[in-house]
Amino acid sequence: MTTGEITLYIATSVDGFIAAEDGSVAWLEEFQSTGEADGGEGSYEAFFADIEALVMGATTYEQVRSFGEWPYEDRPTYVLTRSNYPRATDAVEFVEGEIDGLATRLERRHDRIWLVGGAQVVRGFLREGHVDELRLSLVPVLLGRGISLFGESDQRRELELLENTTHETGIVELRYEIGG
Amino acid sequence: MTTGEITLYIATSVDGFIAAEDGSVAWLEEFQSTGEADGGEGSYEAFFADIEALVMGATTYEQVRSFGEWPYEDRPTYVLTRSNYPRATDAVEFVEGEIDGLATRLERRHDRIWLVGGAQVVRGFLREGHVDELRLSLVPVLLGRGISLFGESDQRRELELLENTTHETGIVELRYEIGG
Repeated sequence: MTTGEITLYIATSVDGFIAAEDGSVAWLEEFQSTGEADGGEGSYEAFFADIEALVMGATTYEQVRSFGEWPYEDRPTYVLTRSNYPRATDAVEFVEGEIDGLATRLERRHDRIWLVGGAQVVRGFLREGHVDELRLSLVPVLLGRGISLFGESDQRRELELLENTTHETGIVELRYEIGG
Repeated sequence: MTTGEITLYIATSVDGFIAAEDGSVAWLEEFQSTGEADGGEGSYEAFFADIEALVMGATTYEQVRSFGEWPYEDRPTYVLTRSNYPRATDAVEFVEGEIDGLATRLERRHDRIWLVGGAQVVRGFLREGHVDELRLSLVPVLLGRGISLFGESDQRRELELLENTTHETGIVELRYEIGG
């Protein structure tokens, strides 16, 4: 049985915030060179080309939907929510239930899965040991406040640095394998 | 009149912690290749050689003192505290008062000042606009809990990436100029 890999690929400020307190990611716009929250210069395109499915929370989904055209083509996109939202495309599926079971189902179904965010969903996947790779785009700003990516957790996780790339925008992209 | 530069040079986990909840930095030891909390491979030595004075809080001072031999040679070291502690060396001076005035005095007296930590002192210096450069040694681990380097702040600060170095230990050293 194959087991898919889940990658958390996300942009944070140097002080660890991923969004304003209301979930807005407007602060990212000035750093974007390609129109995606990506670290710029093609790294996003290469990453996305390899992705089979996406998983995200409802607030992130509503953020992405607010950008206009749905950016994730026909990739199956799982949105964790108990509420009803409009479906951006036929590829969007609303899912609920506990994270461990859901992640296991996704890992069976897809080889490479992008965990998009937000903080609550990320923390759940990390807590349950369902994040294999961490790709952080460190954006050169101290935001001061907002939604932190990492909260408090009882688990320590070892990381192995796989790649460190500097982009022209000053964004540093760090790729880590997440250990036990 | 000359004005000294203050550099915050500090190691954090990828999830932004600088110490365990009790202030201990034992978690750093396994990543150290030179015996200093430095990112390894000589970058600390080069940095320290250029430093004229140090400033730190009392908890950090007590941590450093607990390591044994005082590691900062004869560099004037200002410890912010209202309490009495033993002086590690003649170069240690205990200071109190508000941070803005203190920082201004240090900047007049010394050209290159190392802001060592901890979180409370760092946040005070950042808040008052007295940190010119940020050198973060990102240690490849998610600690889960402890003392965060950056808290919440009402000020957003722009950063300019000056240098990005990968060390053999997997530590990534990022050097930023702190703007307005």
